[in-house]
Amino acid sequence: MDTTMWIHNPRTAKMREIVADKDAFGDVRVIHSMCGFRASEYFLQNDIRVKPDLDALGVLGDVGWYCIRSILWAVDYELPETVIAQGHPVKNQAGVILACGATLYWADGKTATFNCSFLTNLAFDVTIYGTNGTLHVTDLVIPYEEKSAEFSLASKSTFVKPTIGWDPIPSKHIVTTDLPQEALMVKEFSRLVQNIRDAGGRPEGKWPAITRKTQVVLDAVKASIDKGSEPIEVAG
Amino acid sequence: MDTTMWIHNPRTAKMREIVADKDAFGDVRVIHSMCGFRASEYFLQNDIRVKPDLDALGVLGDVGWYCIRSILWAVDYELPETVIAQGHPVKNQAGVILACGATLYWADGKTATFNCSFLTNLAFDVTIYGTNGTLHVTDLVIPYEEKSAEFSLASKSTFVKPTIGWDPIPSKHIVTTDLPQEALMVKEFSRLVQNIRDAGGRPEGKWPAITRKTQVVLDAVKASIDKGSEPIEVAG
Repeated sequence: MDTTMWIHNPRTAKMREIVADKDAFGDVRVIHSMCGFRASEYFLQNDIRVKPDLDALGVLGDVGWYCIRSILWAVDYELPETVIAQGHPVKNQAGVILACGATLYWADGKTATFNCSFLTNLAFDVTIYGTNGTLHVTDLVIPYEEKSAEFSLASKSTFVKPTIGWDPIPSKHIVTTDLPQEALMVKEFSRLVQNIRDAGGRPEGKWPAITRKTQVVLDAVKASIDKGSEPIEVAG
Repeated sequence: MDTTMWIHNPRTAKMREIVADKDAFGDVRVIHSMCGFRASEYFLQNDIRVKPDLDALGVLGDVGWYCIRSILWAVDYELPETVIAQGHPVKNQAGVILACGATLYWADGKTATFNCSFLTNLAFDVTIYGTNGTLHVTDLVIPYEEKSAEFSLASKSTFVKPTIGWDPIPSKHIVTTDLPQEALMVKEFSRLVQNIRDAGGRPEGKWPAITRKTQVVLDAVKASIDKGSEPIEVAG
């Protein structure tokens, strides 16, 4: 189990339930994600995430991980066929990536794009566009507040004729949590351990599978960056 | 002057003013735009926008125009150097584009991605990520309501330590208008005509220049689609 904390927020489960609703949301067609923060000069000089011999994946391995996970989460972990990195990633003098992006392609025509950056204002956005619905979340990874988190949802939107507004307008949804997402993550980890230690269970496959898929896509993006934006097939 | 109505909404000018603020917003680094609507079966069979001998640019010429214009507007109409279309655009049987996307690259490292679609729920999103600020608008082209329109803005966002929230959280801005954006557009057109007819003025260059730049980028995206996602240089 990796430490992707936001996946344990109850908001995440609620959003996934909505996206999976074939009537209200339809089929996912397009996903956009952007995760970034404005790293300090100290960070850019000293953090392990900018050192080639420490965390050599740079921003891609840090917040790019969340972009890729959020995209896979949105499509219920169906791997894309191909990824193509955007050209001209920003790298530091040691060659570590500070900002980059990519497009992901699925066999059925779904596409997703993401950008990640150490050089922009704080952003943790994911928007999912379905045939019937649209879901916006702008604080996915760390919610604006610890005990409640929002997202907005539009379903079967049309224009008020003669094109003077929308009906319905997107609705705001708020999901509360007594425990912070990080505590819920530790609780889940404890459950997994207890199941083995106290109940004679075997390791569960769900979390390792999700972690591996995220890494597989991340590695494909890195390979595409290294090969000057060549398309890279994602090896399932 | 083209009939891009949203450019005449007072919200648009207010947002542009904020994005141009070097302290509050910094330099634009990344832009995402998605414009789409779920076309009816009747539309997909009969509308001029799906007929190769009528409006052959399909969704790219319809709502893709707004994506491209919004991106150019966000960067004060500085043309990108290169565009690369996403692979696998959706086309109808006559070869007209129903859904597509592209990435735009500027000389200074700014990038923008957009998607446009006749096959998703209604969406008119633009998000602009700067070094100091982030601006979200989710109803750019036709605001949710006619007389007032919103956007959200975050500037110099940091985490509340120990990473339990954001400070400041994004703020909502509301811009009201007595006249709908379409009426303001006609008013501007009348002003341009009157300036020539009644005041002996010469045609103003501002609107034709913006229109032409939008078309130049749109043509480059179309050329990249036609050439299987080859990079196309944007001819200024």
